[in-house]
Formats: sequence, structure tokens, C-alpha cells
Amino acid sequence: MSTRTLIRGGLVVTAADEVHADVLVDDGRIAALAAHGTTVAEGWTADRVIDATGKYVLPGGVDAHTHMELPFGGTFASDTFETGTRAAAWGGTTTIVDFAVQTRGRALREGLDAWYAKADGKCAIDYAFHMILSDVNESSLKEMDLLVEEGVTSFKLFMAYPGVFYSDDGQILRAMQRSASNGGLIMMHAENGIAIDVLVEQALARGETDPRYHGEVRKVLLEAEATHRAIQLARVAGAPLYVVHVSAEEAVAELAAARDKGLPVFGETCPQYLFLSTDNLAEPDFEGAKYVCSTPLRPREHQAALWRGLRTDDLQVVSTDHCPFCFTGQKDLGRGDFSKIPNGLPGVENRMDLLHQAVVDGHISRRRWIDIACAAPARMFGLYPKKGTIAPGADADVVVYDPHAVQTISADTHHMNVDYSAYEGRTVTGQVETVLSRGEVVVDRRTWTGRAGHGLYTPRSTCQYLN
Amino acid sequence: MSTRTLIRGGLVVTAADEVHADVLVDDGRIAALAAHGTTVAEGWTADRVIDATGKYVLPGGVDAHTHMELPFGGTFASDTFETGTRAAAWGGTTTIVDFAVQTRGRALREGLDAWYAKADGKCAIDYAFHMILSDVNESSLKEMDLLVEEGVTSFKLFMAYPGVFYSDDGQILRAMQRSASNGGLIMMHAENGIAIDVLVEQALARGETDPRYHGEVRKVLLEAEATHRAIQLARVAGAPLYVVHVSAEEAVAELAAARDKGLPVFGETCPQYLFLSTDNLAEPDFEGAKYVCSTPLRPREHQAALWRGLRTDDLQVVSTDHCPFCFTGQKDLGRGDFSKIPNGLPGVENRMDLLHQAVVDGHISRRRWIDIACAAPARMFGLYPKKGTIAPGADADVVVYDPHAVQTISADTHHMNVDYSAYEGRTVTGQVETVLSRGEVVVDRRTWTGRAGHGLYTPRSTCQYLN
Amino acid sequence: MSTRTLIRGGLVVTAADEVHADVLVDDGRIAALAAHGTTVAEGWTADRVIDATGKYVLPGGVDAHTHMELPFGGTFASDTFETGTRAAAWGGTTTIVDFAVQTRGRALREGLDAWYAKADGKCAIDYAFHMILSDVNESSLKEMDLLVEEGVTSFKLFMAYPGVFYSDDGQILRAMQRSASNGGLIMMHAENGIAIDVLVEQALARGETDPRYHGEVRKVLLEAEATHRAIQLARVAGAPLYVVHVSAEEAVAELAAARDKGLPVFGETCPQYLFLSTDNLAEPDFEGAKYVCSTPLRPREHQAALWRGLRTDDLQVVSTDHCPFCFTGQKDLGRGDFSKIPNGLPGVENRMDLLHQAVVDGHISRRRWIDIACAAPARMFGLYPKKGTIAPGADADVVVYDPHAVQTISADTHHMNVDYSAYEGRTVTGQVETVLSRGEVVVDRRTWTGRAGHGLYTPRSTCQYLN
Amino acid sequence: MSTRTLIRGGLVVTAADEVHADVLVDDGRIAALAAHGTTVAEGWTADRVIDATGKYVLPGGVDAHTHMELPFGGTFASDTFETGTRAAAWGGTTTIVDFAVQTRGRALREGLDAWYAKADGKCAIDYAFHMILSDVNESSLKEMDLLVEEGVTSFKLFMAYPGVFYSDDGQILRAMQRSASNGGLIMMHAENGIAIDVLVEQALARGETDPRYHGEVRKVLLEAEATHRAIQLARVAGAPLYVVHVSAEEAVAELAAARDKGLPVFGETCPQYLFLSTDNLAEPDFEGAKYVCSTPLRPREHQAALWRGLRTDDLQVVSTDHCPFCFTGQKDLGRGDFSKIPNGLPGVENRMDLLHQAVVDGHISRRRWIDIACAAPARMFGLYPKKGTIAPGADADVVVYDPHAVQTISADTHHMNVDYSAYEGRTVTGQVETVLSRGEVVVDRRTWTGRAGHGLYTPRSTCQYLN
Repeated sequence: MSTRTLIRGGLVVTAADEVHADVLVDDGRIAALAAHGTTVAEGWTADRVIDATGKYVLPGGVDAHTHMELPFGGTFASDTFETGTRAAAWGGTTTIVDFAVQTRGRALREGLDAWYAKADGKCAIDYAFHMILSDVNESSLKEMDLLVEEGVTSFKLFMAYPGVFYSDDGQILRAMQRSASNGGLIMMHAENGIAIDVLVEQALARGETDPRYHGEVRKVLLEAEATHRAIQLARVAGAPLYVVHVSAEEAVAELAAARDKGLPVFGETCPQYLFLSTDNLAEPDFEGAKYVCSTPLRPREHQAALWRGLRTDDLQVVSTDHCPFCFTGQKDLGRGDFSKIPNGLPGVENRMDLLHQAVVDGHISRRRWIDIACAAPARMFGLYPKKGTIAPGADADVVVYDPHAVQTISADTHHMNVDYSAYEGRTVTGQVETVLSRGEVVVDRRTWTGRAGHGLYTPRSTCQYLN
Repeated sequence: MSTRTLIRGGLVVTAADEVHADVLVDDGRIAALAAHGTTVAEGWTADRVIDATGKYVLPGGVDAHTHMELPFGGTFASDTFETGTRAAAWGGTTTIVDFAVQTRGRALREGLDAWYAKADGKCAIDYAFHMILSDVNESSLKEMDLLVEEGVTSFKLFMAYPGVFYSDDGQILRAMQRSASNGGLIMMHAENGIAIDVLVEQALARGETDPRYHGEVRKVLLEAEATHRAIQLARVAGAPLYVVHVSAEEAVAELAAARDKGLPVFGETCPQYLFLSTDNLAEPDFEGAKYVCSTPLRPREHQAALWRGLRTDDLQVVSTDHCPFCFTGQKDLGRGDFSKIPNGLPGVENRMDLLHQAVVDGHISRRRWIDIACAAPARMFGLYPKKGTIAPGADADVVVYDPHAVQTISADTHHMNVDYSAYEGRTVTGQVETVLSRGEVVVDRRTWTGRAGHGLYTPRSTCQYLN
Repeated sequence: MSTRTLIRGGLVVTAADEVHADVLVDDGRIAALAAHGTTVAEGWTADRVIDATGKYVLPGGVDAHTHMELPFGGTFASDTFETGTRAAAWGGTTTIVDFAVQTRGRALREGLDAWYAKADGKCAIDYAFHMILSDVNESSLKEMDLLVEEGVTSFKLFMAYPGVFYSDDGQILRAMQRSASNGGLIMMHAENGIAIDVLVEQALARGETDPRYHGEVRKVLLEAEATHRAIQLARVAGAPLYVVHVSAEEAVAELAAARDKGLPVFGETCPQYLFLSTDNLAEPDFEGAKYVCSTPLRPREHQAALWRGLRTDDLQVVSTDHCPFCFTGQKDLGRGDFSKIPNGLPGVENRMDLLHQAVVDGHISRRRWIDIACAAPARMFGLYPKKGTIAPGADADVVVYDPHAVQTISADTHHMNVDYSAYEGRTVTGQVETVLSRGEVVVDRRTWTGRAGHGLYTPRSTCQYLN
Repeated sequence: MSTRTLIRGGLVVTAADEVHADVLVDDGRIAALAAHGTTVAEGWTADRVIDATGKYVLPGGVDAHTHMELPFGGTFASDTFETGTRAAAWGGTTTIVDFAVQTRGRALREGLDAWYAKADGKCAIDYAFHMILSDVNESSLKEMDLLVEEGVTSFKLFMAYPGVFYSDDGQILRAMQRSASNGGLIMMHAENGIAIDVLVEQALARGETDPRYHGEVRKVLLEAEATHRAIQLARVAGAPLYVVHVSAEEAVAELAAARDKGLPVFGETCPQYLFLSTDNLAEPDFEGAKYVCSTPLRPREHQAALWRGLRTDDLQVVSTDHCPFCFTGQKDLGRGDFSKIPNGLPGVENRMDLLHQAVVDGHISRRRWIDIACAAPARMFGLYPKKGTIAPGADADVVVYDPHAVQTISADTHHMNVDYSAYEGRTVTGQVETVLSRGEVVVDRRTWTGRAGHGLYTPRSTCQYLN
């Protein structure tokens, strides 16, 4: 297929530049950009011409943190790779990096193969994998090297969830040492889960079973503590570190302090921490369960620190941690015991729009929007410039975005396979109009034209912020 | 003149991307980029084709801090706009922002017009002006507004040089307040000159007259103090701040602390602080005078902090503060009294090469090189994307750079009008090969093809980091 | 006079200890302490026995910052040395350190002699002097050495009040250098007066003339800035530093940072900053003028930082900065122009009681009360252990304090020569019952038995925190 | 026994004051102090008069961290309560607080009773106990309350030594919560033992078996990390915290940061960290084993930070962590495997002298010496003013100290039951001359007059820094 597509008249926005240029797509890749109205641009012809006048032409979003079909607490995240990637595309995201899970006592290989199989032939957009290390030992450490070579170059560890995903500090140190030598990047869920479990037990013993107690026991200081500890262990190992879903101001401060020292320490936050708060967790009639995730939502005051961190580059990436569970039938496993509520929120479809709203609201610039949502995650996880930008040679993952459209987010209209929206009824300005994945139109002026299986598994190089 | 030029086969390096692309120049601007070998690229024809195979294709450098023909201490900086801009082009810099000077008791207008006149018809490359405020009063404050509208959008103040350029904290505050309302950017020479003058007088009284005492009396703590003070005054005024020629680790720390708070505070350093040290100031036989500038060179240990600041974006810009005085006839005004040595170093020709050496040495990445030398100064001073990048629509200020050539810096071979080099005998890897200024070749495979008067005055918009 | 006085049955509270001991006073000094009920204590006889059962036996307060009869803004502080020291004694303070003032263009000697003369024969309690340097020059620097030898070992400089007391950074640096060699201690009024004067002028130009604008223009950031600058200048000079009347949280932070580095930097606050706020400055009908002093009162939130600083020893001393001006006839000089309101508050009589209230309220411990009000100022200014403690050999400056008495502060009942109280109507627990000055009873169960002229001038050694 | 003893002519030095006073001891307690030469002093008679002219009269030292007869690594600390307390008295220490040990799976009661039994009738000086919690569970948490009531008011936890004394963060949190409610004080060995054990294993696997590797694997960052973590857990629990044997500059920084926030966090260091370094650990022929203790000795540069911390009160206490093992027969258990070297140094006899040497060397003042060695440990652990000062009513634990005597520390002359001295051959100025324990002379002009069994168990109140 060598269909040439020409995207005319738009404002091309990347992390670096805003350029009035026509974009020529050929053979699934960006072939060329030319300034509007130049003779060279005027001379271009194509099989398909997309009029982007008055629109933004954006690189497709890269969501570096999703959990399709994740088994958790006796159930599974409700989006499959098929439904989840389709919803992603609807939301302007054209690449996801999902998490393969090692089962305790089993090989990484086994877990990774299982995830390859789950995703194979199902995805509407390109995808890649991180690996969750549930069992750090001599054997899994050796396997890490192989996975890096294979294109699975990042490994998630948990300081939370004792007995499930939890690694102790010795395991963490060993995995970090290994990553220091094989080029992998350790991704850390930084909460002191051992201490939190004590507080959970005490809260339940006091009869505090409502979802809002989920937010109270997972204390800010215990996120900040774990963040500090992970940084110190990474320093001992001489390894870089990426902290996932940072939610607390005090955790941002730990990252900022480390970065001021020049340490290769990175941080991700998620839309839920930027737009929601403990007010949501406190919604009555168990509605708060919809917002149960870990790290938890924080009091509203923390949002300012997260926005500031995104502006000062102390936080580099906004991912979704998309991990949806239906309110009916899944979230309600935790009625009467907040600790049994499956942890996770839907969001893969909403990220680009919510962050554009942040542009409108003045929290970030237009270029920073594309940086934190497209370019930085691509660089962080070794996908750049194939993904994350619009430049000659890049994959033609392109979004034509209408910055003036107004939409209201709702479970009635979203495409994620989950019975509620965390942002129900919220009106935002800006909407995805057309989406190309490697040159193929998957959303055409808000009509679905994609297909399961179009999306390809994409091996990754190592973190591109370390050179 | 609508000559099409095609730059074939190079690696286009910008602050954001490294792209294997051909660059089509038309009518003095970048018309288009296309991936090597694509049909669209192959189809391009041009009047002139430059083969950049194996080379970098860079945006021309932007040196935001030069002082051509500056009157200082009874003499003048030895480069005219003609010689200085030619030397700049030889070194891969295609835009300078020089400083017009207000004379005490006179209007800004008068000073600015004088500088317009000095530069007019002389420059080989494009140029713009900052304005030095020597006399902040009601009248000059009002003039600031006019200058911002006219494209002179930045104003330099001095906390040093009492009796000459010095402004007191009240004047500084007033100028900052004005800039907060008119969009101008205050550039600050941050040293506590009042305290330094006491130390100068005491040193001379003790018979400490050698150039090295210049470095001893202008103390690190007094740079850090002034930096802190300027930041606090800017906070009171609600204004952004750009600190010029940061040299001390402690000053970087003040900037980093301010930026962690999310304040719009920026910092510039210069090659002399990155590559030279008090060891040079201590060279015998008055040779140290060659390295006398203010802020002064610092002990070698400070260099690591400056490099770290450049990596962590606590420093954003590397300019030269190019202000050459000949060793014979100018620098020797200060024999027997270091305080009479004209302050300044030549450097406009060496900046791009020295910073490329820093890439080779691993201090910064290739993209960061282009950022601090091209893109960031252009954005900081309202010239982007006309200057500072290679993108459709940008001015075709382009450097073809040979990353493998080896050269030895020397006054024998440099093009600056000064009788010594601060980097004499230093061998660096990388060299400018060909330079285009608005599409016109001014250096062609290391032959001069430019001319005085090609360079145009370029009005600037306000700082582009503030939106 | 060798009258023996025995103070029986009280709890002797010093900065270090709380001891149930009888105190034997002989010949104006503490002769001995013995545990209650021991044979040695039982065996003591005396000319006068004071029953302190159920009471505290305290060292007399040391107020290290008073301004009796200070000329300011065309008027004089309303307390003379006679009325002011009597009021001090009523409030449990038995030593003051007042400020002699150098007139610009005149010798320190002249100013000091004038203050010796003013105080001579008038004081009810012992007194000493600091010297205000209004004119730092070669001559006054030399005089500093003589004053240190004479027992005037501390020198106040002002970064505020341009044109009046203001010294520029060069003068400050010179005075600090001198103090580094002669053992003197520089006391600093740390506000950026040059910047503040700009804000004052602008506020008045906007018609903001009410007393509350006094608090708005003298910004927190400008106190913090000056504090930081003074610390840096002291580091350059290698000198210790004592910052007077610290009022802003950000200034406390500067002191804490300096002290963490081990620098000899000290801080004083005053009761008005601990108990009053900008709410008082905003009182209607010009009542706010009663609270005009510089540094100004701050928003209420700053109080917590001041209390914390006192607990963590980042602030060491609470003085009053007693400088009363009558509301009628003095404060009203500033009706219609807050900048003409004489700066200062009465307080010398209230300090010990207000700080005891802070003990009752849990802000500080009983021992810390005595430390910040008695021992620390005595050590800071070279009066210890003659003043500031109850120990064998110390001057018998002793207060018998009833911790259970309840009193209401009011201008109707206070002894200061001023027509209002800054704490009018405030009820506090604890009251001075009996006061001895060098063994002589000056307040006897709340009857005045003292006399003008009993108080002696007391030369001081250098700061005792520096060894 | 109501023997009156009079100590004449000395300089009484306490944490607060330096007083020229005679001290009258009656019935084992300080009865009175009187200024030299006053009629009251001259009138005193006594059964025994000690001439202290030209000497210091000090409160007896309080060593809050000793391990007599501690079982460790298959052997026992070589000092019994009899030999250890005798050596302590020789060194001017008149109170020790030793550590009773809970055996895993057994009650606190059982451990405490065992230690009561070991010490009973053996001690030459007074003693008290902390309790080591090896097994935090519901039962031991409840026992904590009882122990606090009984006078065992402090509890040591270990973040190091997994499998032996180690508690996880949940156990630590629970114990801290309990202490927050019962008034106990948690003492923390702050090293990340889980991570350290990985590094130990790796070092041994690389053949790094020499004692110096003990210092390399127990990294500074892992002490700082654990210190930070302990502080955060204490904040969550709302409990105070005392960190034992702080050795690293970065750990001091964590304490300083916590204290700047006003948190009730305290730190102890030991003479070995102040006077020894990794240079000692690197002594050849296994001599380094003599200096193996945990936290380990640090590079010499850390000493300055510890002295600064002692001066700025970021560290409050100097204890010995006295835990002697003979070089022959005990330390050599670790030949060929540094991890098998019993951890600990002798020092109970040397502390007062080494710290006096620090006074001579200018690191601390004379009063600070008595504070960190006598008063602060007494206050910290609820023994003040019975112990730690010389004041009417206090126990007559008194040391007559000759500040001019010169002695050379050596195993040949020391009284500790161990075959080496960590300070062998070091000459110090100052020596204990005479020691009283509760009024009884136990060392009389350097002759032993004490006896096993004179020392009494001394229950303690809770920490006296918290009110």
C-alpha cells in the first residue's frame, strides 16, 4: 500500500514547534512537510487530501501506562486490547505501552508471551509492552537482559501491594543494578505498602470501610517516603528511575530535588490526579469507588504542584494508568471494605482532550501538551522519532484536532468498555476529528474506519533521555 | 531573488529532533523537508545543491549577548559590527543580539538610534538589539514601552559598576514593574557591585594589582547574593527575569530554587565559564588580563555545576558576551591596577564549536547543543521560529557542520578583530563548513562569500517562554 | 549595704533548670542556692525573707532592644529613661540595652555621650547601650574598636530608611569586616528600604494612605531578601550577624538555612509579631496607626513560623523594640500619609507576661521562656552570667512571679508613658509580684519601691555565643 | 549515711552555666551551691572536703547507649555490668542506660527480667534500661505500655540486621503509634539492612572479605535513606524519634531538615564517628576489624558535619554504643568474611575525655561538652535533673576533672575488659581525678574506692524534650 495522503492547511504542533505546514504521508510514514502556499507544497498531489484548515495537526498520542485485561483482585480490567485500543484511537492516542505481568514463581518469558498472545491481532493501533517484575530472583534478573534486547526495555516494580506485586528493597536494588548494566528503565510504583497495609487494617478495624478511607490510609507522606527511597536505591545502583502515577506534592518535591542534582530520575502523573481529588472519593452511596486507584486521588491542593511539576519538567509524562473496572459487578466487590475495591480508572480515551483543556485553562502551553502526551513518553520508552512527533521519516500517526469543538464527556458516548466515566458530564473544548495510524485513517471525521489487527507490536529501544 | 537551494543527505539536528532529511530552501526561507530517498525528495530540483552527506544540517546559531564596538573604560571593543558579524558567521552564528547603550542623562531613543547607525549596512548576518538602561527614570520608563513595540523587547540592568551602568534596587524594581506590564524582559548583570568596589579598593590598597585579584574580589557569594536579590525583586514586580553570564555554582542554585517554585526566571552562561577558570586569570606576565571579564572566571569546580545546570534546564542559554579588547593597547591599560583592565573576552566565533566539543565530551546531547545555542536564545528573545530552528517557513539560516573535522583554535586563524584567542591552541572536533543566511551562502566550504550589509536588522517579539 | 535577703520556697526557673531551691542574696548578688528543706537551707537567716511558696523565682528579664526618648520623624519616643525603666521593672525586666544614635556627619563618641547623659541618674534598673551607626566611614570604623573596649560591643545598621539611618552594602561590608576583627556584633534592620521607598511612593500616589498600607508596601519578600543579603555580606566579611525584629516566615527560613550551615547568625523577634497581625494594622479610624512599626506586622499565618523558630532555636531572643509614640499628638502625624506615622510600639512592660502566656498556651516551655527573655539576650550581648540567670555570683536581679494571677493589659493600668496599649483588653495569666534589682526590692508585692538612679550603666563583653 | 561532703574552689560547669561555686553534698544529693568566698560558703563545714581548686566540677556523665554482655553473632560483649560500669566510672560516667533484649517469640518481660538479673548487684554506678524490640506484635505492643509505667521508657528498633533484630516498616509504624500514645521514645538504628545485605552478599561473592568492605557496603545513602524513612514513619504515627549512632553527613542533613520543620526528631552520634574514620577500617593485617561497628565508620570528611550538627543542636547526644569484643578470640570470628566480625567498639571509659579534647580543639564549647555528654542524655531519657546536672536536689554524681592533665589512651591502662583500645596511643588533655556517685567517692584522686553493687537501678520518666 503506497497511498499518498496529504494533510493540508493545518497548524502542525509538535513538542518543539508550531508550523503552518502541509504534511505529506507516503507509505505509512511522514514523507515531507512544506510551508503552506509554497510552490513545493502547492505542487503536491495525493490519493487522499485531508483539509485541516483551522485545525491542529498533531502526532498521535502515546499512552505509556495502560492495563488492558489486567487481572486484579479476582477480576479483570474491563477493556480488552480490542476495545481499549479502539477507545484510545477515538481519543487521539495511536500507541499504547501496556504491562505484561510476571506471575510469581514463573518466568518473565511466560508472562510476556501470554500478553503477546492477548494482544495479537486485536489492536486497532500500535502497541508495546513493559514487563511487571513480580518475582525478582537470579533467573528473572537474567531474563531482563533478554527482554531488553527483544524490545521490552522497561520493568515495573512495586513498593506497594505486599504479597502480590511487592518487591523488597533488596529485590529492587538488584533489579536496578541489572537495569544499570542492560540499559533497562525501572518504573516504580512508589508507596510504602508495608506501612499502608497496617493503616488499612486499622481503618477497617475502626469500621472505616467507605471508599474515601482508601485515600486516607494511603498517606501523602508514604508516597513521598517511597519516592525518596526509590531515588536513593537508584543512586546506589547507578540506575535511572521512572516513578509512575505521582500524585502528591511532596513526591514531586522529591523528584525535583533529585533532578536539581542532575540525577536521571523521571516522573509521570495521570489526568485523574490533575482533574479529580479526594472530593470525588468522598462521593456518597459508594460512588467514590469509581475513583479508587493507587496512588490515590489527593486533596485538591496537590493539583497545583502537579501542574507546576509539568511546567518545570520535574514531571515529564502524563499517562492514564488506564485500568477500568465496571461500577456494577466489579467496583462493588469492595462494598463494606474499601480494600477490596479493584484499583483503577478508565481514561485512555480522555487523556488528549483533558490535557488540551489544560492548554485552554492556561496550565500548560500547546507545545508542552504535545510533549507530555506524545513526545516525552515516546522518548522515555524508546519509540522516538518513530512515534511522538511529526517529522520526515516518522510513522504517520497523525491526529487532526479541532481546537474549537466543544464536547461533554460521558459514559453514554465514550468507547471504553466500562459502565461509567470518571469525568461524567464534564465539558471540554477541543476534539479529535480524524486519526491516522501509520498512514491509515482509523477515525475519519468522527467515524470509525479502523480495524482490530491493524495495530502492530512495536519493539522499543532503551530510554532516550539518558544519552 | 528566488533561487532554490537544496541541502541533500545530511542529518538535520534541531533542539527537538534529529531527522535524516533533505532541506529545500526557497526565497530565503525553509520551504520543505523531506525524508531522504522518498519520491518527494528525489523529485526536488534546485539552482544550487549542497551535498551534506555525513554532515549535520543545523539552524544557524543565535548569539544573544554581544558587544560590538562597546565603549568601556575609555576604549572600545575591538570588533566592529562588520568584523564581528563576519567572525560570527565563520563560527556558524547567523544572528546576534547586541546591546544598544543609553547614556546617563540621555534618552533611550538616542542610544538606540546611535546603535542602529553603527550597525546599519555593516553586518554580514542578521542582528537585533537589547537596550542597556543606564538611567532608569520616569522618562526612560515610558520609552521602554515604545521600544517593546518597536521590537527592542529586552532591557539590561546592572547591579555592578556603580557610577557607570549601576541601577539601585529601586530603579531595578521600577524597570521590572514596567516590563511586567509591557512584556519586556529584564536582563540582569547580577553582582553586588557596591560591595565589590569596597573589596577592589582594599585589594589595591594591599598592593594586590595582578589580574588574578579581579577573580578574588568579585566573590562567588556576591554573585549569588545579587542573583537572589534580583529574583526577589522580580517576584515583587511580578516580572520575568533573565540573568546574564552566570558563572558561580551558588548562583545556579539560586536559579534552580526559583525555577522549582515555577517562577519565570532564566539563566545564561558563556563558553568562558564552561571552559576556562581562575587558573587562566592567574597566568603570569599579565597574561591573566586576557581573561578578565565580569562576572569573573571561577575556580574549575564551578564548571560541573554549570554543565549540570545546562542539562537540567536551570540554565537555558549559552551566549558569548563577546566583548574583545586587544591584549596590546587595550588590556594593558590595567597593568598595575587590575580594576582598569577593560572587561571582556572575544568569543563570538568559537561558541558553536566549543559547545560541539561539549557534545563530544559527553556534557550535553546533540539536541541540547542546538537548543542552548540556537533555539532557546531565539525563543527567549522573540525570534522563534524565524530564527533558531529548521522548519518550514523559518528563515533559511543554515549551517552545514562537519562533526569529524578537527581544528585548532588560534588568533592566527580566527576572524575576530583581536590579537589573541582565549582558547589559543585548543584542539576541538567539529567545524563549520558552509553557512547560509536567509538562503544566501555566506561561507561556502570555508570560503567567505558573504558581504557587509547582507545582514538585516530584525525586530523581535517578546519572550516566548512566558505563554 | 550588705543586707541579706532570703527568697524561700519558690521554684527557681532558669533557662537550664527548674529547681526547688531557696535563694540567698547577699551584697546585691546571688550568694547561694540550697534545696528546700535541707539543713543548710533551714539554717539560713536573712534581714528580709520573701515567701515565694507557689511562685516562680526568675532571673530578671533582659530587654535587648529599647528606644527610650528616640528622636524619630520629628518627634521623640514618649518614654524617658526614667519612665521607661520603671515600666520595665513593673514588667519584670531588670536590664535594658538601649540604642545610642550616631548623627550623620558626627562622631560615635558624641552620640554615645549624649545617650550616657540622657540615662544618667534616671534609670530604675541597670542599662547598657548598643550604638546605631548612621554614618560608616573611616573615622567611625576606628571608633568602633574603642567602643568595643569600652563595653559598647554591638552596632546597629539599617538596610531600611534611606537618607536617615540607611547604610549601603559597601558600608555594611566595611562595618562587618571591622566587627570581625574587634569582636563586635552587627545588628541588622533587614528590609530593602530602597525598594520599599518605591512602593511607598507608588502607594501614596494611588491614594493608599491608610496605616494598613504600611504593611502592604513593606513586603515579606523584601524582608527575606535583605536578611539573605545581610547573611551573605557577613559571610564575605567573616563576621557574625544578629538580625533584629524578624517578622516574616521567609526571613526565618533564611536564618534557619544559615544556621544549618553552622554560620554564626542570630535572630530576634518581638511580642508584637507573635501576638499581633495585619488585622490590627487594618483597624478602622486610623487605629491601625497604633501598630505601625518596621518591620511591619504580618498576616497571622506568620506567627506559627516565629513560634517554631523560637522552639528550634533559629530565633534566639525576644526583645520589645520598645519605641512608644502617643496615639494623640504623635501617631497622628501620619493621618493622610502612613509614611509619616512614627514607627514604633510600646511593649517593655508587657514582654515577660506575654511570653508567659505563650507558656500557658503551649507555644514554648517554661525554660525556653526564660531563655529567650533573660539568658539568651544576656549571652548575646555579653552580660552573662551577671545578668540572665540565677546562679551563685550573679547579680541579684530576681523576679518573684505568680503564675496563677490573672491580669488584663490596659493603658489604664500600665506604667509606660504612652496613651494606648497595643494589647488593650487582653487577659493573660501570670503576673510579676516582686522584683529585685541587684538585691534591692524595686517592686514589692506590686508596690513601687524603686527609684530613679538606682539603675547603673553596665558595660558589656562581646557576644558569648561565638566561643 | 548522712555524710556531708564539700567540694571547694572549683569551677562548676553545667550545660547552662560556669559558676565559681562551692558544692555542698548531703545525704547523697547536692544540697547547695554558694559562690566562692561568700560568708555562707565560708561557713560551711563537712565530713569530707575535696579541694577542687583549678579543677572543673562536673555532673557525672550519662552514657545512654551501652551494651554490656550483649549476645551478638555467637559471642558476648566482653564487658560485664561489673567491669563495664567500673570502667565507666573511671572515665567520669556515673550513669549508663543499657539495652535489655527481647528474644524473638518471647515476651519483653522475660528479656527485661533477664537484664535486671544480669545487672543486679554488679554495678559500680547507677544504671537504667532501654528495651530492644525484636518482635513487634500485639502482645509486645501491649507490654510497651507496662514498661513505660515501670520506668523503661524507650524502645530500640532496627531497620538493619534482617532476621535478627530487624523490624519491617509496618512493625515500626505500629511501635511508633504505640509510643505516641504511651509516651515512650523510639530509638532507631537507621540503615537499610535489606539493601545492605544484598551488597554484602555481592561483595563477598567478589572476594571482598577484608574489614574495610564493611564500610563500603554499608553505604552513606542507605543510612540517609533509612533516617528519612524513619522520620516519615514517625510523622505518620505522630511520634517522636531518636536516631542512634548517626555517622553520615547526609543523615545529619535529614535530621536537620526535620528539625527545621519543628518535628520532635533527635540524633545521637558516638566518639568513634567523631575521631575515627574509614582509614582505620582499612588498617592492614585484619586490624581494621577493631573498628567494625554499624553504622560503620565513614570517610574523614563526615566528621566536620557531625561536629557542626553537635554545635547546631541537630545532634543532641554523644553516647558510646559501647559494645566491646576482644580482637583475639572474638573479632577474629570474621577473618575471611567481614560480615562475621562482631559489630562493636569499646568506649565507655573514653567518652568524657575525648569530648574534652574536642573542647580543647575548639569543636565545641565547655558547656556544650557537658550538655551532649550529661544533661541532654539525662533529659532525653527522663533522668533529669536527678542526673545530668549539678543543682540543689540533684543526685550527687560529681566529677572533679583536671583540665590540664595529659594522658595517653591505651589498652594497657584502661579498665574496660577488652584487649585493645580503639584510640591506642592517642594523647588527650584532661583527666578525671575524683568521682562521686550519689555522694559516695568511687574514684578518689585516681584510686578506685567504688564497689560492685553500689550502683542502683534507676527507673526513668519519659523524654523531657517533648513538653
